Amino acid sequence: MQNLYDESIELHKKFGGKLETVSKVPLLNKDDLSLAYTPGVAGVCLAIAKDEKLAKLYTIKKNTVAIVTDGSAILGLGDLGPMAAIPVMEGKATIFKEFGGVDAFPICLDTKDTEEIIKAVKQIAPVFGGINLEDISAPRCFEIEERLRKELNIPVMHDDQWGAATVTLSALINALKIVGLDKQKAKIVISGVGGAGVATGRLLHEYGITNTIFCDSSGIINSKRNNLTKEKLELLNASTIKDMEGGLDLAIEKADVFIGLSKPNILTPAMVKKMSARPIIFALANPNPEIDPSLALSSGAYIVATGRSDYPNQINNSLVFPGIFRAMLDKDIPQFENKIFINVAQALADMVENTNPNNIIPSMFDPLVKETVYNAVTALSL
Amino acid sequence: MQNLYDESIELHKKFGGKLETVSKVPLLNKDDLSLAYTPGVAGVCLAIAKDEKLAKLYTIKKNTVAIVTDGSAILGLGDLGPMAAIPVMEGKATIFKEFGGVDAFPICLDTKDTEEIIKAVKQIAPVFGGINLEDISAPRCFEIEERLRKELNIPVMHDDQWGAATVTLSALINALKIVGLDKQKAKIVISGVGGAGVATGRLLHEYGITNTIFCDSSGIINSKRNNLTKEKLELLNASTIKDMEGGLDLAIEKADVFIGLSKPNILTPAMVKKMSARPIIFALANPNPEIDPSLALSSGAYIVATGRSDYPNQINNSLVFPGIFRAMLDKDIPQFENKIFINVAQALADMVENTNPNNIIPSMFDPLVKETVYNAVTALSL
Repeated sequence: MQNLYDESIELHKKFGGKLETVSKVPLLNKDDLSLAYTPGVAGVCLAIAKDEKLAKLYTIKKNTVAIVTDGSAILGLGDLGPMAAIPVMEGKATIFKEFGGVDAFPICLDTKDTEEIIKAVKQIAPVFGGINLEDISAPRCFEIEERLRKELNIPVMHDDQWGAATVTLSALINALKIVGLDKQKAKIVISGVGGAGVATGRLLHEYGITNTIFCDSSGIINSKRNNLTKEKLELLNASTIKDMEGGLDLAIEKADVFIGLSKPNILTPAMVKKMSARPIIFALANPNPEIDPSLALSSGAYIVATGRSDYPNQINNSLVFPGIFRAMLDKDIPQFENKIFINVAQALADMVENTNPNNIIPSMFDPLVKETVYNAVTALSL
Repeated sequence: MQNLYDESIELHKKFGGKLETVSKVPLLNKDDLSLAYTPGVAGVCLAIAKDEKLAKLYTIKKNTVAIVTDGSAILGLGDLGPMAAIPVMEGKATIFKEFGGVDAFPICLDTKDTEEIIKAVKQIAPVFGGINLEDISAPRCFEIEERLRKELNIPVMHDDQWGAATVTLSALINALKIVGLDKQKAKIVISGVGGAGVATGRLLHEYGITNTIFCDSSGIINSKRNNLTKEKLELLNASTIKDMEGGLDLAIEKADVFIGLSKPNILTPAMVKKMSARPIIFALANPNPEIDPSLALSSGAYIVATGRSDYPNQINNSLVFPGIFRAMLDKDIPQFENKIFINVAQALADMVENTNPNNIIPSMFDPLVKETVYNAVTALSL
């Protein structure tokens, strides 16, 4: 990985940041300026002051999303602070544009206080048509998203939750189809109950996959544990399996699916061997998965997916967020709802022709992805 | 003006906002993504987490300025709120790029509370290399700028104050030269003691122009008035003329220079006629000046400047802010100081060859402006 790190640092040094702001209008002479700026622009200001909805037609609010982080959960690296988060948010912004035609700008907040984050996002909201929360650690991410959805009149989505959950559900739909398992019968172990784990659990349950066991760093989440957060309690209550005690090694016995949204190398070959006949392994920790894909396969896994681009079946949020925000902005949809994510997951699963263990999810470079996601959102009445 | 307003609305509707965010790096395939985004980008994050100064080399912090407003003093229109401010901030951002190569992004805050604005700007600061405060009404603009300069480690400038003051001083230097007046003897009336008026007063005083009379909506600022703000008191204390009572019509008698940073049509032909032999009139209210330029000339004005592009001698902040921020970012200058503005004012004045009553200040389209401003900043030891 060090080579890749060094190469990436060189790229960032060379370009001095990956994002630039560019004028869409000509500014060649006084006439241009008198329309784009003063005095002509006053007409636009007065029109918006009279009817604020016009900001969605006349300004960047029409097409611009804030990528908001506090730098507390950067990639798999943890809390590195808002300054170290900038390169990730920039990268995300470039993907927004490249794959969704959405303008996006990084907002890296120098506070980790839930109330202050909520307040800051509300204060900067006028310019933006949507808010993409990013790399904010659990459990604060839940309240921040929930509150902002209620208190703002633009769509708000924590991508580490719903992007991950949507693509995971999508890949799972095809994986279950390949092994011929009914969604109500499949036994699913989810390792990691942070932002992505909670959202994935919620989406699976809403989709009808309820034979679920969740494991956090203290082991299996069950009815005898005290001090469960409200999110963990909710996931437990929606699961059919409620009383199992022990660790991941116990949970994994006879499981059909392992979904890792946790940390590197916690799934051992011995555990894979204890799973059902054709184990499905989603080892999604980034950049280092819960088990090395080749080790998983040699231990008997039938289908393996990771977050990495150098293996088949990449579970990648980039499949979802550009197209989903494109649709939210274009159609002025007031807020995200779970049925949007489920519809997108189903549509992405359905677009894979020729499903097989190495082909359960489209590539983000497939030109049909954006349109598929877009149509899945706009087909709903919202 | 209505035609221009309508034309500007059409332009804004057509483009749907004037600014876009664009990737500077290629994103054509998985290899590109693995450097610009995960997993390679983690190397950049880790490097910055170790040494935050690297953010100025590896991220958009190197070249990006926030244009921050609360929408309380938009152009000459007043308090229209943060949403109606977006078109102005976008326009400013396009000028930043076009004339200074500086990336800039609008931050329109949904609060008018001084403390909340200060806090919000500090919270969003990690991404930015500088802060351009814009269209924030007096007297809050003074404390906000002062506090942010102390509490942030990036340069902060309220352009309505210092951009205006710098260009005004620059034009005044040449105007006084043309009429052959010594800066210490010229009698100057400044109408309007908001952000621009206060900063212009401060800069004039620091430059050695102290024969000044300030007028606000209650008339001449003098030592007998109660309840003067601390800024007005400071300007009075630095002026040689302290005890004159009355209104603008009295102040203007025998004055050599009128500087209007106030509101439309408050300077009458009769007042111009009461001024000294060769009156210098800067009628800078936007978009409608304190006196119509042709009326000023027909009433005996010798030199007239306005903020408008359709008359000679345009006093335009755009001469200053792109180049000055370009220099601040490139040279990593920690904070703005008045000597920067004075040096820039002098340099812009000096670059005018062939000064005459219709040519006291360069055009913003003069390709030498940026370099002149840049060199005036970087020549100082800061």
